[in-house]
Amino acid sequence: MKKTTIHDIARELNITFSTVARALRNNPAISEATRVAVHQTAERLNYRQNKLASSLRSGSTHVIGVIVPSLHVSFFSSVVHGIEKVMNENGYSILLYQSNEMLRHEVKGIETFLQSRVDGIISSVTLETEQYGHYEEIKKRNIPLIFFDRTLDALNTPSVTIDDHQGGFMATEHLIQQGYRRIVHITAAQNMPIFKERLRGYKDALQRYGIPLQEELILQGQFSIEYGRSCIRQLRERGIPFDAVFALEDYTAMGVIQQLQTYNIQIPQETGVIGFANEAFGELVHPGLSTVDQQTVKMGEEAARLFLKTVLNKEPDEGRPAEKVVLEPVLIVRESSRRK
Amino acid sequence: MKKTTIHDIARELNITFSTVARALRNNPAISEATRVAVHQTAERLNYRQNKLASSLRSGSTHVIGVIVPSLHVSFFSSVVHGIEKVMNENGYSILLYQSNEMLRHEVKGIETFLQSRVDGIISSVTLETEQYGHYEEIKKRNIPLIFFDRTLDALNTPSVTIDDHQGGFMATEHLIQQGYRRIVHITAAQNMPIFKERLRGYKDALQRYGIPLQEELILQGQFSIEYGRSCIRQLRERGIPFDAVFALEDYTAMGVIQQLQTYNIQIPQETGVIGFANEAFGELVHPGLSTVDQQTVKMGEEAARLFLKTVLNKEPDEGRPAEKVVLEPVLIVRESSRRK
Repeated sequence: MKKTTIHDIARELNITFSTVARALRNNPAISEATRVAVHQTAERLNYRQNKLASSLRSGSTHVIGVIVPSLHVSFFSSVVHGIEKVMNENGYSILLYQSNEMLRHEVKGIETFLQSRVDGIISSVTLETEQYGHYEEIKKRNIPLIFFDRTLDALNTPSVTIDDHQGGFMATEHLIQQGYRRIVHITAAQNMPIFKERLRGYKDALQRYGIPLQEELILQGQFSIEYGRSCIRQLRERGIPFDAVFALEDYTAMGVIQQLQTYNIQIPQETGVIGFANEAFGELVHPGLSTVDQQTVKMGEEAARLFLKTVLNKEPDEGRPAEKVVLEPVLIVRESSRRK
Repeated sequence: MKKTTIHDIARELNITFSTVARALRNNPAISEATRVAVHQTAERLNYRQNKLASSLRSGSTHVIGVIVPSLHVSFFSSVVHGIEKVMNENGYSILLYQSNEMLRHEVKGIETFLQSRVDGIISSVTLETEQYGHYEEIKKRNIPLIFFDRTLDALNTPSVTIDDHQGGFMATEHLIQQGYRRIVHITAAQNMPIFKERLRGYKDALQRYGIPLQEELILQGQFSIEYGRSCIRQLRERGIPFDAVFALEDYTAMGVIQQLQTYNIQIPQETGVIGFANEAFGELVHPGLSTVDQQTVKMGEEAARLFLKTVLNKEPDEGRPAEKVVLEPVLIVRESSRRK
């Protein structure tokens, strides 16, 4: 079978070669109707771009690099799914790099992407990231950079996050409305804005409902199943009474549940538990884990849309504040906190 | 601070520039002792390779592309972890591409990796992959290709798999030893060697223990929580008695458990359940899910080692059969099948 060329598409639609070429590149000078007609015809005729040749001509590879802290948690793989969905529809491929929460890996990932001449980078920073020369390097080269979930506020960079303050507020308010009063909050290092905001939400909810803040109920460390278990052991050893736990993320909440079960404490009758992130395992465990959903797929889709907008919008962004999309969290109530 | 160069390392060790350069590239002409000394000195002096320049000189990018069907299952993210471990130690970066079980995405991923001039590709093929022109293209270009878990037997390609026949045998034998006799096996399309082998292991275990094979107890379809549930519904509607289920993978086994629980069937007293793959959720659910562990991290490490061996071993591999590493599966017994 003869290979379809841009000329074939042009002949089919009775338009010029350059209009087809620009429409295939989604050039904004081309009307939406023409763009759609060209893409549909290209698909019908089974047109396959010579990616390397077209990349050499346009200087564009149509490859986007995505940096994620970890693929072991469904939160990130789910955001990636949203990014892929929108980017594939728009003719881009996604390459992933896992930083494993280490700054030096993050730096290496960015080097690797720059070396592969990606058209843009979408990233969620590691817990260690406090310097950001490697991110400034991306901006210096005029390569679009978008953050999702975990951002660096010092850089004027477009981002998609959820309203973590609202999420922390909702989780705590839900526990209060279920009749819990001595609510523990487990949080991590406060250099990460998302955790700081969840804690702020917790405090504001207590205040709104007139429940005095007890510093002894706020445990600050890290996050993992093991850490969740150790928090409960600690509270017990120190004889601190509590009737609910709001953990900063679901794995820690799972550790809390496991440790409470070791002590034969009834969940949710005696103690309620809620996590954050709506990890996939939460609906498989018993009791089902209440949590706060972060609209992961939508977060990915929005990050992809911000990227496409930045690419189409070629003017330098100096001075203009970067666009920040903030999504609403969604409360998911399961058995671990439902006692009414 | 002045940047460390290859000259600094050569001066420090009193050896030539070219010896250092070759040692840094792990050239096999350099003795192991020298290689280690050079790498240690490079690290101590904080030597940082100019990757782009060295890649232009050597034609090598030190980037490996890994294609995985899905990052939503912990099996694949865990293998990736093993690959990263060994490859990072050897100075390589890993880029990931998710095929989402679709042939056209797999083809696109390979195109993207070739365009990024990766030094090698490590892949686990999709369920749809029956043609393999895209893999032949990799071999034609003399780029090392390694398969893990899911392979294409028609290509003479190094691979790391586990002994799926043995795994299927172990799972079935365990159920028999727990006293179960009417053991259902849920499997998927038989074009995938791993599923065919697990089924063969199931049949051989029944035969070994003198249990007649009942075709009505073998259900063949796909795999998912929903499919596991529907299998149990089907068996019940058709009035087929059974006292245990060996599902081809853990999510399907989880669906089986959920549906049995809907019918108030006691697990493991009345019905035993075992899955395959040792997904992370299996130890979090209740009852804990028995399964077969595939030594995922080791699988990734072995795949990385096979890659390094192929790279160091520059002779053409024509005629020689490719090396196949086969790992032993490990039986993991939890509550869902332990009734003795």
